[in-house]
Amino acid sequence: MFELHPQLAKDGILVGDFRLSRLLLINDKQYPWFVLVPRRPGMTEIFQLDEVDRVQLLKESCLLAQVMTTVFATQKLNIAALGNMVSQLHVHHIARYPSDPAWPAPVWGKAPAVPYSENDRVERIAVMREALTAHLVDGKFSNG
Amino acid sequence: MFELHPQLAKDGILVGDFRLSRLLLINDKQYPWFVLVPRRPGMTEIFQLDEVDRVQLLKESCLLAQVMTTVFATQKLNIAALGNMVSQLHVHHIARYPSDPAWPAPVWGKAPAVPYSENDRVERIAVMREALTAHLVDGKFSNG
Repeated sequence: MFELHPQLAKDGILVGDFRLSRLLLINDKQYPWFVLVPRRPGMTEIFQLDEVDRVQLLKESCLLAQVMTTVFATQKLNIAALGNMVSQLHVHHIARYPSDPAWPAPVWGKAPAVPYSENDRVERIAVMREALTAHLVDGKFSNG
Repeated sequence: MFELHPQLAKDGILVGDFRLSRLLLINDKQYPWFVLVPRRPGMTEIFQLDEVDRVQLLKESCLLAQVMTTVFATQKLNIAALGNMVSQLHVHHIARYPSDPAWPAPVWGKAPAVPYSENDRVERIAVMREALTAHLVDGKFSNG
């Protein structure tokens, strides 16, 4: 059975579920930063998913990337499956700007996370839920 | 027309061409580190590729990842499309080990690159060419 890794549950806030992946907002207001976690137990690498799941993850990643580009008006995304610290397969999607605190370096380990205020968090999640619902093809998005 | 970004040409050594992507070995012997560059001009994000190319990139990425896991006997890969410095779409594939100089941090910006000796470089490329040729389904791999 799929269970979200405790570290991801601590760093992330549930936005909803795609058909395959759980969507989390990372609680760091310095960057618009989302993570997809395929709801398949025991996965640590993308290639371990079966072919159907791989393609579904790609779809969800591209949908998320496209929506983030529009919603956060950015020219650059960083997309990465690292997992050196948290082995459960998860894919980072981060909107980047030349004005952000880590640019042009990757964000990991650069500046300590700055949590959202409750208002900002609620608003960011609401905006993303709305944008994603509108783009979803299969209607299987759930607010989780 | 596709042309490899000069910075990628400088940092990487040609291994060969998959059907979609050019495969480069990054000239840093501290990590087994390869980059896929889809041979499509003007791309900066994965979602900008058309659907056929997206799926082809996924296939090539998973093939490369699987082969790297075996050839370099690692439990962990880092796979990332960043592009903050070099905008041409390229996807890093890095075999990671608890004993490597950046672990558990990402490798970018950690330790200056240490180039391969000519012998080691030639051998690493030969091993990967052989491993990939054996796994290729469509026979379109070329030594470039």
